[in-house]
Amino acid sequence: MPKTENTEIAEKDLDQGESLLAKLALEAELADYSPVKGCMVIRPYGYAIWELIQSTLDKMIKDTGHQNAYFPLFIPESFLQKEKEHVEGFAPECAVVTYGGGKELEEKLVIRPTSETIINHMFSKWIQSYRDLPMLINQWANIVRWEMRTRLFLRTTEFLWQEGHTAHVTKEEAEEETLKMLNVYKTLSETILAIPVMDGIKTENQRFAGAVTTYCIEGLMKDGKSLQMGTSHYLGQNFAKAFDTKFQDQNGQLQHVHQTSWGVSTRLIGAVIMTHHDEKGLKLPPKIAPVQIVIVPIYKEQPDKEMVLDKCKEILNNLSKDFRVKIDDREQLSPGWKFNFWEMKGVPIRINLGPKDISNNVVEIVRRDTGEKLKNVQQKGLNEYLLKLSTEIQENLFRQASEYLNKNTFTVTDQKEFTEKMKSGGYLICFWCGNENCEEILKQKTKATIRCIPFKLPVDQIQEEGYCISCNKKAKEKVIFAKAY
Amino acid sequence: MPKTENTEIAEKDLDQGESLLAKLALEAELADYSPVKGCMVIRPYGYAIWELIQSTLDKMIKDTGHQNAYFPLFIPESFLQKEKEHVEGFAPECAVVTYGGGKELEEKLVIRPTSETIINHMFSKWIQSYRDLPMLINQWANIVRWEMRTRLFLRTTEFLWQEGHTAHVTKEEAEEETLKMLNVYKTLSETILAIPVMDGIKTENQRFAGAVTTYCIEGLMKDGKSLQMGTSHYLGQNFAKAFDTKFQDQNGQLQHVHQTSWGVSTRLIGAVIMTHHDEKGLKLPPKIAPVQIVIVPIYKEQPDKEMVLDKCKEILNNLSKDFRVKIDDREQLSPGWKFNFWEMKGVPIRINLGPKDISNNVVEIVRRDTGEKLKNVQQKGLNEYLLKLSTEIQENLFRQASEYLNKNTFTVTDQKEFTEKMKSGGYLICFWCGNENCEEILKQKTKATIRCIPFKLPVDQIQEEGYCISCNKKAKEKVIFAKAY
Repeated sequence: MPKTENTEIAEKDLDQGESLLAKLALEAELADYSPVKGCMVIRPYGYAIWELIQSTLDKMIKDTGHQNAYFPLFIPESFLQKEKEHVEGFAPECAVVTYGGGKELEEKLVIRPTSETIINHMFSKWIQSYRDLPMLINQWANIVRWEMRTRLFLRTTEFLWQEGHTAHVTKEEAEEETLKMLNVYKTLSETILAIPVMDGIKTENQRFAGAVTTYCIEGLMKDGKSLQMGTSHYLGQNFAKAFDTKFQDQNGQLQHVHQTSWGVSTRLIGAVIMTHHDEKGLKLPPKIAPVQIVIVPIYKEQPDKEMVLDKCKEILNNLSKDFRVKIDDREQLSPGWKFNFWEMKGVPIRINLGPKDISNNVVEIVRRDTGEKLKNVQQKGLNEYLLKLSTEIQENLFRQASEYLNKNTFTVTDQKEFTEKMKSGGYLICFWCGNENCEEILKQKTKATIRCIPFKLPVDQIQEEGYCISCNKKAKEKVIFAKAY
Repeated sequence: MPKTENTEIAEKDLDQGESLLAKLALEAELADYSPVKGCMVIRPYGYAIWELIQSTLDKMIKDTGHQNAYFPLFIPESFLQKEKEHVEGFAPECAVVTYGGGKELEEKLVIRPTSETIINHMFSKWIQSYRDLPMLINQWANIVRWEMRTRLFLRTTEFLWQEGHTAHVTKEEAEEETLKMLNVYKTLSETILAIPVMDGIKTENQRFAGAVTTYCIEGLMKDGKSLQMGTSHYLGQNFAKAFDTKFQDQNGQLQHVHQTSWGVSTRLIGAVIMTHHDEKGLKLPPKIAPVQIVIVPIYKEQPDKEMVLDKCKEILNNLSKDFRVKIDDREQLSPGWKFNFWEMKGVPIRINLGPKDISNNVVEIVRRDTGEKLKNVQQKGLNEYLLKLSTEIQENLFRQASEYLNKNTFTVTDQKEFTEKMKSGGYLICFWCGNENCEEILKQKTKATIRCIPFKLPVDQIQEEGYCISCNKKAKEKVIFAKAY
């Protein structure tokens, strides 16, 4: 593996990735630790990123025919127990309310770790006929899954997410929905977050508790670890049977519905941080940057100051039609300090404006993605110039991340190579016999797990048959191994 | 009091208001009961109203300089106890988590009944200097306050809201902020929800636990009861002292910040239901109607059907630039059934379209607010016509509600009159000596409480001095009494 700027971090001790994440998130004021273990506070700058992701995804979810609703935070403990695998998967992570209104509760309430159970309870009331189907519901909500250690945005006891829940007449329709929404997530990740992803199927080990099939998108972070960025589950009739969610079909027969559920969370902000950064700080893709352009006035003396600030305001007014733009006119801070500050914050484009620029009717532009300085850019036509530049930066960040992904994805055929390569992280593609023990053996040795059975492999790695990386038996399935968060 | 259509409900047994609310909310599929006592499910049609209210208010909150953030659901029990009045007010309503991750917790966690405590804890970390002020934060979140009885949207154990929390250098600035945000709520209520409100100051009895002053807006519902629709609190330095939230002023001195908090909730949907309805169902103001216009195709035979549906689609396409519009092309249902259905749902404008209308290039329009049928409206210029009509409906709903408010607001000067009038609900304006016992006596007799000390009274009720409605002692304060939810 050639040493490049992009892969530098991955070769260090992988745990440094986490402290880097914390450093970047705290310094840029995206988040803070809460007094309650495992919880976090999302600060305004981080929440603004979430709002931009949310509004984009919300539109995509509505455009595919779904409606938003809101279901209760509290789930009766007995509900969780109705689906056997579901309770086994989630019970150990639950926060439990035992007192309410000054009294001990007769039935304990679980704080939703996910809402399949409560939603199925409601679906069983709302769905009577095939005419009520498909039922396509989405919810934006907070979720609680107990964590002892806080990894800001990536693993926290409480997080924000959306969860889609749908019910269909046929298995085929439900399966199609599952993949459609996985694809929505992939599009969101690649075109909005500028993060290339591997999409595929989870092995039984990593399947959602209660699902028939779990699909996922996984992104390779700059510390060489893989991050599960979104999942879409085909639930079959598991929950429908547990909650007796039935409809009368066109022949008057009662049938259980076929279901899906799918979700992404504030973890996506973690993915953005861990994909787009350098030693100076964050590099936000323009589409989700709360501030896309910052204008830094540069002056030394009083008469200049007024003129420079006036021109900055004029430029701000013009740009604010097309961009989220801001002037940093704080008096007590030097331009140099401001440059570092906004680079750390990941603002994609900076405009430096001084008296000389003004007399020449130009500005100086600095790109955050490449660090490139664009001198003497004409003020005339600046909006068009910046719209183009902004698209270029968005695409370039995706390109950089894709290069990193490609450089750190390898096909391996023997276990020694596997162990050696996995030291520096990345994705290892190899054959696997399908036996959980074989995965476990490699996990013990390297901490890596199977991230997914990928839909598609890079062209040069296609091969029909091979031998399991662990037991050497003949295998047909190609899987991706990586260390995960 | 003259008997009019508007006041009819108020004269019945007031408890019927609640069952009417439940009937309207369930029938129009705005909400449903949850299996957990006190909780509700907000169904897509109800949630769409919330999204429209939310996006409007969110913009107003941002336009006044605030930023959104997100704070944890869990508050350590010890935090609640730091402000004496606050814990007394909220502890009895709290849901308490005692188990997490399979273990009993060392410190119990309260689910936020409001977030002053956890936010002050963070503010005390974030605020160091006067340069960090004002700190203007808002949060959209779910809140839990234990209720034994569910009144859909009006009182539920869990509800959705926004809570603003700000910190300032001076008392004056904080007081100004408190009133500014109360005014934002008033504007929202009057111009978006079409609900006129009384604004004023709460008496000590009804003050937020921990505040110095609580301001409120109150709306008079059609069952004669008053609904507290929003509150804005001047908190003084109470929480700042409890959490040691200090800043260094320009002279280098450490000072406690001056604070405010303010909130409105999904209760606003309850206010809309209970203000705008008749015996046929809801009447939604166009600005928050998820469907502003419904088109009902009318045809008898096959060749007509295709032509009518095609024309409906053409009209839909034109209108969807300016409106949230929908065709009801369900085959198994008659036009008459559809008329009733969409009237019950409160859709402001209905377009009926049949073959005869098409050959005359016209449509038939039915207004939900007045029931008026507008025949032979030209298809040409329909968008402009409907934009005007939509504004008129929005204004007319506000006018109707204002008339109801005026007709049911009375000045009373003796207790007998008070008791008699209060039987049929409404607002009673009277003098009060300021003694809590006097309020308590009237509450025992009539169930009415002081809703607020109003900022402004209707002109014909201005009078400088009078005698307390309860004890007959000389009084300077005029207050509004009503039965409340």
